[in-house]
Parts: sequence; C-alpha cells; structure tokens
Amino acid sequence: HKEDDWSKCNRSMGEVVQNTKEAIATLQRRNPEIQPLLVILQAGEDDSMLEVNKKTAGKIGLNVSQICLAKNCSEDEIVEELLKLNDDPRVHGVFLHLPPTSLTSRVLNTLKPEKDVDGISDLNIGRLVRGDVSKGFIPPIASAVLDLLGKHDAALKGKSVLLVGGHGPLRMALQCLIERSGMTVQTNHWNSKSLKTQVMQADAVVMLSAGNVDIPPSWARPEAVIIHCEPALKPDDDIIDLSSRSGLGYLTAAYRAQNVVHSCSRWIQEQQYRPWRLH
Amino acid sequence: HKEDDWSKCNRSMGEVVQNTKEAIATLQRRNPEIQPLLVILQAGEDDSMLEVNKKTAGKIGLNVSQICLAKNCSEDEIVEELLKLNDDPRVHGVFLHLPPTSLTSRVLNTLKPEKDVDGISDLNIGRLVRGDVSKGFIPPIASAVLDLLGKHDAALKGKSVLLVGGHGPLRMALQCLIERSGMTVQTNHWNSKSLKTQVMQADAVVMLSAGNVDIPPSWARPEAVIIHCEPALKPDDDIIDLSSRSGLGYLTAAYRAQNVVHSCSRWIQEQQYRPWRLH
Ligand SMILES: NC(=O)C1=CN([C@@H]2O[C@H](COP(=O)(O)OP(=O)(O)OC[C@H]3O[C@@H](n4cnc5c(N)ncnc54)[C@H](OP(=O)(O)O)[C@@H]3O)[C@@H](O)[C@H]2O)C=CC1
Ligand SMILES: NC(=O)C1=CN([C@@H]2O[C@H](COP(=O)(O)OP(=O)(O)OC[C@H]3O[C@@H](n4cnc5c(N)ncnc54)[C@H](OP(=O)(O)O)[C@@H]3O)[C@@H](O)[C@H]2O)C=CC1
Repeated sequence: HKEDDWSKCNRSMGEVVQNTKEAIATLQRRNPEIQPLLVILQAGEDDSMLEVNKKTAGKIGLNVSQICLAKNCSEDEIVEELLKLNDDPRVHGVFLHLPPTSLTSRVLNTLKPEKDVDGISDLNIGRLVRGDVSKGFIPPIASAVLDLLGKHDAALKGKSVLLVGGHGPLRMALQCLIERSGMTVQTNHWNSKSLKTQVMQADAVVMLSAGNVDIPPSWARPEAVIIHCEPALKPDDDIIDLSSRSGLGYLTAAYRAQNVVHSCSRWIQEQQYRPWRLH
Repeated sequence: HKEDDWSKCNRSMGEVVQNTKEAIATLQRRNPEIQPLLVILQAGEDDSMLEVNKKTAGKIGLNVSQICLAKNCSEDEIVEELLKLNDDPRVHGVFLHLPPTSLTSRVLNTLKPEKDVDGISDLNIGRLVRGDVSKGFIPPIASAVLDLLGKHDAALKGKSVLLVGGHGPLRMALQCLIERSGMTVQTNHWNSKSLKTQVMQADAVVMLSAGNVDIPPSWARPEAVIIHCEPALKPDDDIIDLSSRSGLGYLTAAYRAQNVVHSCSRWIQEQQYRPWRLH
C-alpha cells in the first residue's frame, strides 16, 4: 500500500516538475532577463523541509535565496525583512518557514498578497473560499492533497472524503477545494468517538496532522485512499523518512515552486500594462 | 414549534436591539457629534428585506440612507458609488442590496473592508476563517444563526449541526463559527441521498437556502433545533410571512446594525491615533 502511494506521489511530482520547468522556459523565451525567485524566510538552521524545498527547486531550475533570522527572532525583525522583500521586484514569492507562534496576524498580513505563494494571508484565504482563483494562491499542500485524490484509479467524483484533525485555514481551504471538485467532505477531531465509524464509511481519509497514534489500517475500507499530511510547518524535524509522507512533502514543494512561477508571470503581465513601473 | 422559534427570535432581537442602542449612547456620550450611518446601496425599488432593515434601524436609532440605482445598473455605476462611499467619513457601513450577479469580485472588493458590515469581501472572509475577529465583521446572518443555536434550552456544546445547501463563503463562515463554539458540523446538498440519515442524526439543522420543498418534520428528532435561513439576498421577495423565517430576517438586520456601530467605534478609535486625519 505504502509503495503504491509513493509511486503515485512520484508520478505527480514528475508532472508538476515538468510543467513548471516548461512554464519557466516559456517565460524566459519572451523575457530573457526574467528569473523567478523564491525567498525562504527562516528562523534558525535548515531542516528537512527546507532541504526538500531546495532540492525540488533545484530540479525545476527555480532560483532560491534564504534569509536566516535567529531562532528566537522578534516579530519586528520579521516584519522588517518582509517590508524589504515586498519592495524588491526580483522576489516573486516568499516561503515563511517560521515557528507557528511567529505566524501572527501582523506577520501574515504584512507580506504582499501577490508574493504570498503559500496562500495563507487573510486576503488569499478569502479569495480561495469565495472561489476566485484568478488572484491569490492555492496553498501548496492543498494542491498536493487534491492531486493525490485525483490520481486514484477510481474517479473520486461524488465520493466522500474525511478530513481528520488540523486547523482553521488549511482545513477550510482543503474542504472548499475538495467540495468544488465534486466530492463531499466530512471533518472530525482526533479525539472524536465517531471517528472509527466515519473512517469506515469514507472513500478517502486525509490526516491533516501527524501524531504518534495512527488510524488503524483495519478501520478503513481496503480500497480507501489514505493520505498523511505533515503539519504545514515542523521546523525541528530532521529526518526524511522514505514513506509516502515525505512524498507529499516533495509534491508540496513542487506546487510551491509552481506558485512562484505563476506569481512571476502575473507580475510580468502587470508590468506590461504599467510600463512606467518597469525596473 | 414555529411559535417557539418566533419567541426565541424575538428574545434575541430584543437583546441585540438593546445592546446596540446602548453602544450608540456610549459612543455619543464621548463624541456628541457622532452619528453611526448605514448606507443601503440598492438596485431597484425597496423590497421586504429592506423594509425589515429600515424598521430595525429605526428601533435602534441608527441612521440609514439609501442610494437607489436602476434595476439594471452596470458594474461601473456600482463601483463609482462605492468609491464615493469609501471616501465619505460619515458612512460607517454599506449594505450591498444588489442582485447576486452584481456582487462580482470587483464590486465586493472595491468596498473598503472597514465598511463591509456584511463581511463578504475576500479580506473579511479570510479574517473570519483564520479566526481574527478583532478586524472584519461576522456576516449578520451567521451571527443570527449562532445566536439561535445558543438560545436553545439544552446547551449545544458538543452537539452536531447539519448545514443543508447554501454556497461558499456563507456556508464556510457558519461552519467555522459553529465549530469554534464547540459543535461539530456536517454539510450536505439538498439533492443528496444521505440527507434523510443526516437529518435524523443531527441535533440542529440549518437550511441555508429556502425552496419549495421543505425537510419533512418527521425526519428530524423531536428535540432538534430547525433553522430556516432566507437566501442572503432575495430582491424580488415582497411579502413578509410571519413565520420564524421573517424572525431571522429581523435578527439579521439587528446584527447588521450592530456591525455598523462597531465600525463607527473602530473608526473613532483610529482617528484618536491619527489626529491629523480628523474631519
Ligand atoms: N493519531 C494522531 O496522529 C494524533 C495526533 N494528535 C496530536 O494532537 C495534536 C492536535 O491535533 P490537531 O491536528 O490539532 O487536531 P485535533 O483533532 O486535536 O483538532 C485541533 C483543533 O482543531 C479544531 N478542529 C479540528 N477538526 C475539527 C472538526 N471536525 N470540527 C470542529 N473543530 C475541529 C478544533 O479546534 P477548536 O476546538 O479550537 O475549534 C480542535 O481542537 C497534534 O499535534 C497531533 O499530533 C492527537 C491525537 C491523535
Ligand atoms: N427544499 C428546498 O428548499 C430545496 C431547494 N432547492 C433550491 O435549489 C437551489 C439550490 O439550492 P442551494 O442552496 O444552492 O443548495 P444545493 O444543495 O443545491 O447546493 C448548491 C451548491 O453549493 C455547493 N454545496 C452545497 N452544499 C455542499 C456540500 N455539503 N458539499 C459540497 N458542495 C456543496 C454545491 O456547489 P458546487 O457543486 O459548485 O460545489 C452545490 O451545487 C436553491 O435555489 C433552492 O431554493 C433545491 C432542492 C430543495
């Protein structure tokens, strides 16, 4: 079962890497100078998630630069960096690789929405919930989960997806997107008494948070799709285990890179209508 | 059963009207000049929903002014009015009483978020989903539904609420708010085969859209709370039926008025930190 998941992830990964490479090539054919750039704003050393993102960007040919703040940096320091990144026309996307407690309202909403390639600012979440995909960004992990749901042999249209655990925006984003692609969604807490019943009925189970306990495989239908999500940010994790979990990490990184390229091409288009702002 | 709902609505209505009156009085004690103002931007004649809003504002002592565009007005005309309302410091809230097709992304996001007392702009929806209630506004109809759920004799904490029908942002807003107040949420389409089973299991059923068909009362548990929502905007409806449905309309209007007063008091606070922008 695990191997299947891993190869599904691999197939998706190959497709997203290929598409994104081609998108960069297309951009550069028309704008030879352009170089899409992802900036990672991090607190402390590199961890496995950053390694995955840098490797994936390397495969795609996306430029990455890192700003390393101290592990215990202040909100003001983060905001100061973000203001510089907002003003820098070379930067097309910013990955806020910060501890959850640093992702305050002020931090999340200081970053310009057009560089918020993780789609976690209030404006971009609102756009997604209202269904306006022409602006904003689909959170990369949501794209990855949807991709895996879509890759399943039997079409999942009309099928039921159970989301377990997780928090506000990501859970809502996933729910919106899954419903909009024609499936129904149930959600539940880890501690709920009805969890077993719901797992038994679901065509797919998406675990939004990792933990020590797992859902016993015997609960799920044999043909059910099971997806484990890493928490969106898990800065102290420093092993890449070669299960489907790290597969999803790679796929997420590839979708993040794709969002950077989208952002870059939107920026170019905007410049064409405002030539006086060209740098 | 209907009468019960009506009297619950009436009780809530009395409380919100009273609180909002007092909030206005408090504002005016400190700022004798201030007069919270709701502007209704409408396309065509008054309908029953506007009557309800004007009556409710009258009860509260909230000033209301109306801008009546032609029934078939263009997006540009709406945007032009909104830009004027944005710039007018006397206006604290705008009720976009327009046909659903006129509520385009451009229209919704032209209105300043701080005057969007219905909480339907992307930024305000995102704030709500992310759980930041210090800015933005809870959509009045969501406040009204939550109020009724809370008014039930047995505490609904831990109970399950079924949302039937409805669309993106309002459904998501309600789901977030209901979950955050400790209940679990199921959602379903009107046409779903599992609707009957879900209704039978729910502690509360909220119908987000009205229709010709109703859920047979025999499906629901005898003690279940049943709430009918009018569609958020239903411009051609010109009868007020004296059921719980119009009760919810009044309660929604009262929460809209409350949001206008919130907006006004936020505006005053902001001016105190920026005295040079005082008018
Ligand atoms: N097997 C595993 O992997 C397990 C892991 N854990 C660990 O517990 C921690 C918490 O897990 P977490 O992902 O936060 O998930 P939880 O299931 O604990 O839910 C977290 C919070 O999210 C809200 N929430 C999530 N789902 C729903 C829902 N269906 N309806 C209403 N509210 C919901 C609730 O917040 P609110 O009450 O504020 O609305 C809830 O308290 C994680 O760190 C995880 O590792 C715990 C148990 C098992
Ligand atoms: N008894 C009644 O009152 C009935 C009324 N109607 C009428 O039908 C019309 C449509 O009703 P409406 O309120 O739009 O509700 P629907 O149940 O028809 O759903 C509307 C749309 O909202 C999305 N949606 C709603 N709930 C869910 C869910 N649980 N999971 C996934 N998607 C969901 C779907 O959009 P998408 O597919 O785009 O994701 C769906 O097509 C209304 O005008 C109503 O009057 C219809 C039947 C019965």
